[in-house]
Formats: sequence, C-alpha cells, structure tokens
Amino acid sequence: MKTIPFSKSELEHIASTFHTPFYIYDETAIRNNVRRLKNAFQWNPGFKEYFAVKSTPTPGILKLFKQEGCGAECASLTELMLAERCGFEGRDIMFTSNVTTVEEYQYASRLGAIINLDDAAHILILEACTGIPETICFRLNFGDQLKYGESVLIDFTNSKFGSAKPQLEAAYPAVRNLGAKHFGIHAQFGCHKRNPEFFGINARKVFAFAVELFEKTGIAIDFVNLAGGIGIPYHAEDEPADIEAISLQIKAAYDETIGKSTLPPVSLYTELGIFMTGPYGYFVSRVLHVKQAYKTFIGLDASTNSFMSPLRYNNYHHITIMGKESAEPVQHYEITGALCEDRDRFATDRLLPKITEGDLLVFHDAGAYGYSHGNNFNGRLRPAELLLQCNGDVSLIRRHETPDDYFSTMIF
Amino acid sequence: MKTIPFSKSELEHIASTFHTPFYIYDETAIRNNVRRLKNAFQWNPGFKEYFAVKSTPTPGILKLFKQEGCGAECASLTELMLAERCGFEGRDIMFTSNVTTVEEYQYASRLGAIINLDDAAHILILEACTGIPETICFRLNFGDQLKYGESVLIDFTNSKFGSAKPQLEAAYPAVRNLGAKHFGIHAQFGCHKRNPEFFGINARKVFAFAVELFEKTGIAIDFVNLAGGIGIPYHAEDEPADIEAISLQIKAAYDETIGKSTLPPVSLYTELGIFMTGPYGYFVSRVLHVKQAYKTFIGLDASTNSFMSPLRYNNYHHITIMGKESAEPVQHYEITGALCEDRDRFATDRLLPKITEGDLLVFHDAGAYGYSHGNNFNGRLRPAELLLQCNGDVSLIRRHETPDDYFSTMIF
Repeated sequence: MKTIPFSKSELEHIASTFHTPFYIYDETAIRNNVRRLKNAFQWNPGFKEYFAVKSTPTPGILKLFKQEGCGAECASLTELMLAERCGFEGRDIMFTSNVTTVEEYQYASRLGAIINLDDAAHILILEACTGIPETICFRLNFGDQLKYGESVLIDFTNSKFGSAKPQLEAAYPAVRNLGAKHFGIHAQFGCHKRNPEFFGINARKVFAFAVELFEKTGIAIDFVNLAGGIGIPYHAEDEPADIEAISLQIKAAYDETIGKSTLPPVSLYTELGIFMTGPYGYFVSRVLHVKQAYKTFIGLDASTNSFMSPLRYNNYHHITIMGKESAEPVQHYEITGALCEDRDRFATDRLLPKITEGDLLVFHDAGAYGYSHGNNFNGRLRPAELLLQCNGDVSLIRRHETPDDYFSTMIF
Repeated sequence: MKTIPFSKSELEHIASTFHTPFYIYDETAIRNNVRRLKNAFQWNPGFKEYFAVKSTPTPGILKLFKQEGCGAECASLTELMLAERCGFEGRDIMFTSNVTTVEEYQYASRLGAIINLDDAAHILILEACTGIPETICFRLNFGDQLKYGESVLIDFTNSKFGSAKPQLEAAYPAVRNLGAKHFGIHAQFGCHKRNPEFFGINARKVFAFAVELFEKTGIAIDFVNLAGGIGIPYHAEDEPADIEAISLQIKAAYDETIGKSTLPPVSLYTELGIFMTGPYGYFVSRVLHVKQAYKTFIGLDASTNSFMSPLRYNNYHHITIMGKESAEPVQHYEITGALCEDRDRFATDRLLPKITEGDLLVFHDAGAYGYSHGNNFNGRLRPAELLLQCNGDVSLIRRHETPDDYFSTMIF
C-alpha cells in the first residue's frame, strides 16, 4: 500500500508556489524511520548510521540526519565539503572513497573524518600525505559471491571495491606499527534486499573475520561498518524491510561470533541510503500532453534527466495521479519526457486511471538516487527539491536550475 | 585503425595547461568531415545538415558548423537559446522537439526556426500560440519496424516519436488551409548503422510518402528531413561509413520515387550528430592508481559521470595509452573511476600494454554524447572541453566545473 503525505489541493498549492517538476521529501517520515532504525539497534550501544550522502546530497536532508545523531558517509572532495557545511565533523564523517586523491585524504584528515581505505596499498600514500590517523578502517572484499538463494547478487572477485583478506591481514599490523590505535572493518552486507536472514548470514562473515584477526594479531576491531544494501519495496503489494527482524538476525550473528570471543564489544555502523530516504521522497510532474500514436503517450513537464531511476536501473516506480487515487485503472500508458531519446520513459505499458492534461503525477520511492543522478541532456534543467516539514510547511531546499546555470561553463 | 592528432609530449603540454580530465576535439577533422558530407550530397542542391545540438552542445563546436554552412537541430528551449547565441537564425534552426511547451513554440517562432511537429494534434496548440508558420514540418512514424537484415532496430509502433501516416494525411491539408505554404517531412532513416543499402531502403519509404501525398492532396513537399542514424565504428578494425556510397543509395531511391513523379525537386536535410563529431573527439584522463585485488584495477582521475557512454550504452571505446601506442598488450585491466558504484568502469577485461601511474589514457570516439550525458553523481564534477584548432593551438571551449557550481542550487 502506497500512501502520500499530502492531498491533491495541498499539492496543487505547493505546485503553484514552487512550480513543477520537483522532488518533495517528508520530514516526519524520515525522522521516524531514523528513530526506528536506532531503536532496533539499541542492543549495540555504539551503533551509528552514516547516511550515504551520494543518495540525496541536499543540505536540507543532511541536516535532518545530523539532528537525529547520524553521521555522513562521503566519497569525494565535494561530499566532504558538503558534510562540513552541514555541520558534520570529526568521527561523524566516514570517508568511504575509492581512487582517492591526496587532496581528498588531506581534506578528510583535516575534518578528522574516519578514513576507510579501499586499497590496503594506500597506507603508504596516506602516511606520506597526512600521516596514519589514530583511527583507521579498511574495506574488506571476501572475493566470494553475495548470494540470495541461488542467485548471485554480487561477484566480489569482479568488484572494484575493497582489498582481499590476506591483504588486510597484513595491513592492520602495518598501520598499528605506524601508530594507528583504533580499527574498523568495512564490508558490504547487502544488495537491495529485505530478507532478514540474508543480512544475518552476511554480517556473520564480517564478524568472524574480526574475531579471526583478533586471534591472529591481537588487533581489536573497534567497529564493523556493514555499509548499505537494505532495500525498499517499489510495488504497492510488497512489504518494507522489517528492520527489527534484520537487527535481531545481526544480533544473533554477533552473539555467536564476537559475543563468544574475548574481543571487546564492537560498535556497528551502517551507511544506508535508499532505506533512509527512498520511500519518503516523491517526484512530482504535471501532464502537458496526451498523444495518440500507435500507443497512448503521456508527455510530462519533466524528462528522465531529472529522475533517471526508471531509465538507468529499469526501476518500477508506483504512480499516483492526484485526485484519482480511487479511480479504476482503465488504460495502458507510456509515461514520457521530452528528451530526444526513445528510452526517455518513466513507465511503459502502465495500467492507470484515465489521465488528462494538467494532472499532477506523483512518482513514489524517489527519495534516494533521484536528484543525485540528474543530468542536463538535451539542455533539460534539473528540478527543485522541497521539504514537507513536520509542522506542515513546505520549504525550498534546492532551487530549480535556470538556463544561466546551463550556460555557466560554456565559453562563447 | 585509430589515430590521434597529437603526440604524447603535445598532450602532456595540453594537460599541464588545462589539467585532466577533459574532452578535446579536432577542428580540422570536423571541418573536413562536414565538407565531405556536403560534397557527397552535391547532387541535391538543397541539401543541408542540421547538426544535432544535443550530441555536443558546446559553442566552440556549434560555431564550426555555422561557419561550414550547417544548421542546428534543437529540441528544447535551452538548445534554441544556445543556437541563437552561436549565431544561428531563421531556417538555419530545425526545432525537432517532443512534449513541447507553448513557451518553446513561441521561442522557436520568434527565431524563425522551422518547426517540426512531433504530434499532428499540436496544430491547434501552434495556431493558438504563434499562428501556423509559412513553413512547417511533421514527424512521420510509419508504425513499422526498422530492420537491419533480420534484426529489428526500432519497433516504431512503440516509438514515442512522430505521428502515423493517416494522421499526417489529414494534417498537411489542415495546415495548408491555415496558411502554411512550405512543407517538410521528417522521418528517421537510420539507427547507428553504416551499410549504404540500409539507408537507401529507408529513405525510399519516406520519398514514396512524399509522392503519395502530392498525388493525393496536391501538397508539394519542399524538404525531406532524414534525421540521423549514420553510425561510427568503435573498434579499430572496423571501417567508417562510406558517406559517398550512402549518398548514392539515397540518390537512387530519390530518382526512382520523387525523380519519376511530377513533384518538384525536394531538398534533403539531415540531423546527424555522432557521425559529425563522434570520431573527432577524445576523452583524456590520467591514471591515479593501479590497484591489485582479485583483478587489476586502473583508477583514473575521471569517473563515468564525465563520460557515460561505456556505462549508459555499454559502448566499447578504444583506448590509447600515450607513449605506448606500439607496445604489446600484456594484461587485462578494469579501467575504473571513483564513483561509489561498481558499474563505474570505462572498460572491463581490456587487454592493454602495461599501465603505470601517471599514464595519460585517451578514449576514442568520444566526440558526441560524451559531455552531454555528464552528471554530478557522488559530487563528481564535469570536465573541461578543448578545441585543437586548425592552426595547432588549443583553446578552452568549456571550463571545468568547480565545487561552487556543484553547490550553486543548494540552499543551506
């Protein structure tokens, strides 16, 4: 069941103030979800979510996470700058990058961010440019397959991320010798799935490595960063992830590994993105034209340059036609934008109630990896972002692009 | 065989002046290609190429086409503005849009652009907002399949572009009654192919429609716009399109249809993009790191946000390692960027000469749909564009983005 936190008349009022297309995020729902997540992991006193900045790199969103006690996961110089401007500092920033420049290491170091080395060989680079920090993390790649039932989600031998287990078994003692005092392990434990057992199985492998490392080297891991990978349901009939059940599976894995070892308590970190904001953001566009050719094409005032998910990932996004929530679906539509590319479609062969010009279409589950994948193909401008605040007010958290923005880097 | 219009030392000098990553375009090659195209179509006195602005929307490139007597094909308000700022006006602009706004029609009308209606039903919108212009074009969709041998390239019954034949058979008389005096037909005659016969077969269908329309309604088509679809070879062993042979096939189709009818001579237009600049632009990036995990990963100072073609279209792009043009390929590499997305790869399992940190990598065939698909995922900035001028000088035609650009629409 998909719900919307505004009525048709409320959305028409918002659209008349800020004009379509835009993203709108539900502050109340985002905050409630953070609190539910933190509550689910109360059994781990050090638990911390580092919100994946790349998923929704917008100050008005990042500041919510800051207020709720989360950190920020950054992967580039500009993401570090953005986190800094939003008030994150020190260990509130996890710098999980790859192909990292000296300038980026220096910026992260100046902020006191936790540096998560993707390549164990970068110890030398880091030592030369900033010195080895007291707290350091490595990204682990088991070189196996992340499976879900019989299907292989990720073949880690082909992944560009992380270093192999033998590389890390040498790396941790090396950084200890260079002065590091606190240690973390980062390993991706999911891939857009929602089944609790799945996360337990994968977390267990990482915890077992922490125990093994402790037994072999005496190095006590302070934190395990399980990264992201908790998915969201796109279809109305699907159930969201049961975060309490996922947490219990992870707790069981923890108890059976770290809990049974002599390793001191380990803090758990996550770098969730789509789970944190995906269901709580909506992409809103107005119908400009209904075109009848060999099929019926709905032409929106937005193109997929503003909302790439259906095109880039072939994701299904549920559509609500405002005011027609209870109307019978009567026709199959192609929901298109104005790009000179036939793939520029938000939905294809979608059975919907009758659509007329002027209708407001709301795309659900657009709260992450929506704006951040936007581009300017065909000179199309990126949309605004709005926040539906807890008090019911709506604020502009990112303005629409203008033609001047589009021309700004061109030399005439 | 792939060639490069600069030596290693020349490229190092360019890179030290403008810093990597960047696109660099070869002015001489672009101009020679335009002249060859125009020469090949000399048999048609009205022939005109309208360069597809979306493929390389950069003033320094558009101005070359203006100087060579080409027009500009635009599809959005900002593309119209861009063409105007580059000196295009009147019938030098073809406005081939879809899901078009009143504002766009009005802007195109003010410039005197040829308006190419995607939806025949838009006659009413156009009449209301600008009046019906003296010259008007419609986009034809035959509703058939564009085939290449046995394989279906485009199923036009699913295409969002154009109107059906019966719709246009009613539309032309309707606009004549509303005052239109000059008429065009637009129909896509290719889809990234290079076989001459293929283009002849498809052009023939459009020419036959022009004759049929004339015989049924007395409306004499002034021009046929065959749009784009002439491809380029990505692999070094493949041959480029023989434009003279393609032109001869189109001439034969013309002679057998329009030539044998009482229809007055018809001008041919094209809206080529990738054929005009694709092979004459290069994407240049420097190797930051060589990472050894389960495979060998080359980390560049660019990510696929700057050059999406390998990721978005799974296109192969030939790579030259500067200074190692004649070296033996010895190793398979993954050529990656710094995005937090495993698909962020310019090439996978690519056999190349040994790569070391600091090497300059040149990606071939990056002259179209390169910059224009760029985005800012992970806060990564879009690169500069350079022009290697006919006189050997290099000029900056688009500056690098800066963090300030990235932050410009955010509200803190």
